[in-house]
Amino acid sequence: MFEAQDGLGMAGGAQLSPLQIAYETYGTLNADKSNAILICHALTGDQYVASENPVTGKRGWWETMVGSGCPIDTDRYFVICSNVIGGCMGSSGPANKNPEGNPYGLNFPVVTIKDMVNAQAKLVDHLGIDVLFAVVGGSMGGMQVLQWAATYPQRVFAAVPIATAARHTSQNIAFHEVGRQAVMADPDWHNGDYYGFDIRPTKGLAVARMAAHITYLSEGALHRKFGRNLQERDNISFGFEADFQIESYLRHQGMSFVDRFDANSYLYMTRAMDYFDLASEFDGKLANAFMKTETRFCCLSFSSDWLFPTSENRAIVHALNAAGANVSFLEVETDKGHDAFLLETPELFDTVRGFISAAADELGLADKP
Amino acid sequence: MFEAQDGLGMAGGAQLSPLQIAYETYGTLNADKSNAILICHALTGDQYVASENPVTGKRGWWETMVGSGCPIDTDRYFVICSNVIGGCMGSSGPANKNPEGNPYGLNFPVVTIKDMVNAQAKLVDHLGIDVLFAVVGGSMGGMQVLQWAATYPQRVFAAVPIATAARHTSQNIAFHEVGRQAVMADPDWHNGDYYGFDIRPTKGLAVARMAAHITYLSEGALHRKFGRNLQERDNISFGFEADFQIESYLRHQGMSFVDRFDANSYLYMTRAMDYFDLASEFDGKLANAFMKTETRFCCLSFSSDWLFPTSENRAIVHALNAAGANVSFLEVETDKGHDAFLLETPELFDTVRGFISAAADELGLADKP
Repeated sequence: MFEAQDGLGMAGGAQLSPLQIAYETYGTLNADKSNAILICHALTGDQYVASENPVTGKRGWWETMVGSGCPIDTDRYFVICSNVIGGCMGSSGPANKNPEGNPYGLNFPVVTIKDMVNAQAKLVDHLGIDVLFAVVGGSMGGMQVLQWAATYPQRVFAAVPIATAARHTSQNIAFHEVGRQAVMADPDWHNGDYYGFDIRPTKGLAVARMAAHITYLSEGALHRKFGRNLQERDNISFGFEADFQIESYLRHQGMSFVDRFDANSYLYMTRAMDYFDLASEFDGKLANAFMKTETRFCCLSFSSDWLFPTSENRAIVHALNAAGANVSFLEVETDKGHDAFLLETPELFDTVRGFISAAADELGLADKP
Repeated sequence: MFEAQDGLGMAGGAQLSPLQIAYETYGTLNADKSNAILICHALTGDQYVASENPVTGKRGWWETMVGSGCPIDTDRYFVICSNVIGGCMGSSGPANKNPEGNPYGLNFPVVTIKDMVNAQAKLVDHLGIDVLFAVVGGSMGGMQVLQWAATYPQRVFAAVPIATAARHTSQNIAFHEVGRQAVMADPDWHNGDYYGFDIRPTKGLAVARMAAHITYLSEGALHRKFGRNLQERDNISFGFEADFQIESYLRHQGMSFVDRFDANSYLYMTRAMDYFDLASEFDGKLANAFMKTETRFCCLSFSSDWLFPTSENRAIVHALNAAGANVSFLEVETDKGHDAFLLETPELFDTVRGFISAAADELGLADKP
């Protein structure tokens, strides 16, 4: 845990003080501190990218990508992953106590992607690191990668935004709004001031998660995985039980989510993504965000991702091209939808491994102790 | 209102008695009763296809399609539209009183598309009509059209299933399940037994409607109509108000829906669609549903409809082809998504007008008084 007593000035005008950042590191920082890779997590992710999450007891959420011998090799790189502010895994967020000793609830200032990144920059300062060798993330993590490259171009040697967008679309805002309304419709939400109660707004949050979960999968993957298969029965029940496997699966997703996530944090995370529109900071021109950047970029999208479709990722690539940036792009063919970035997706691993390796060679990292 | 005292035997085994069917008719039945067109409504539709809905005060939901001089011309045809059973506009449904005088609630038997069609057949009998000149409907209405053609092939001269499917997909079941869980999570739902209370489960139903509404529109239409435009403000509020037009629009859709629709009916309607899998009645082969049919079919889909995509409509066409049926098919190019069937879509109107006209000529309807 890192605590910055000077706090953080936020985009909405608030001063968050103190600023707490919960983080994990893996591997060893080299002597000139040039081998650090920052991993940015997605909407409901956390800092346990490559180690057991103490709350859920589950393995790291990106152990296939980050670890010894992995594409992001902790034998070679010093990997940092911090819980975003507004989250609920130890960094400052709505469930934390304010300076007066009461939970913030909705009095926690609304967080933007830029706020998350500025907070991470303070952590990176604290670790004594001037330039990050790479910043990597998917989905909301990819938004942070783009923001890092735009706000701190001198501090990012290589950037890997995956399955993301430079602005949240109308349809995506719409899905988030449904989730928020589901939470807010739950009488146990108490306008965000539920921390003193035994009961939390789990029903609303479960519905929100169910709706969101559909958007993480492709229609093809759903059809392949579930189709119209029935759940532990031979015939439909002519009732409202979970007759179909897909119903049972979604209910499980909703119910298990509420055990590990705070409902208010869900509101803040979705809002941060909705508010993200990188071009708006740069006179409405996305290319301006990357003018004269020396960062090298590797952008990836997934063919069946309809939440962050290839078109949105390609728009980033076009802007990078227009800015004269060094950029490579791959659309990975998969039917796994948006979730592909968290799953066994060999083409993703191979591409990240190759890109990181080449960037390390370029920087001469192999020669450094 | 038609009331069948002998009731209706339903797919789940229940006997619904009495059976009430609320319906509207337009135009005049000809002497040999050969000019009747049955319109089947969609999930939240009603019998007021071409006349003012007395509850909402709004105009008929398909006035562009059905009326004097319209593609389905009430000067030439006798148009029937009935509220499906399980609905909430006067036909037997969960809000109605059971024979003991109490509202059914969840004791109303679960309704299938076939049950809806069998109830309509009783109404058609009651009107003294042997053969329907045409059966027309979109979405859940299209499912009824297919069921009519499969169950009563001798009674359907022409069939127009629009933007529909012969089975509900996993993704569509998933969205429906989210909606149902949103309703059921509302403490005012009281396990469906809320009719005696002042407060109804409007919050849950509004969330369900919001989620569903997103699926009725295409990403392109949302982008064109709303983009990231702000609602009556120049800047984001750094809060959870409806900053974006799309949020405001969705909230309005949710709130206005609950004034006109019963939450339990929403559960029953979505369940009926989920259960629909026409092939399952015919040894798993959809073509068997239409073997030796003499009905002529006109199938339509919309290019940007991702709820009932062209692929699902094409599967119907393939089955009809395999059954040797007389079928024409058009994918209408539009960015309006699933909603296109209810909107100003000239290609849809032209196609239905042409098909109905040709079928009328074939039947020699013009010569009949």
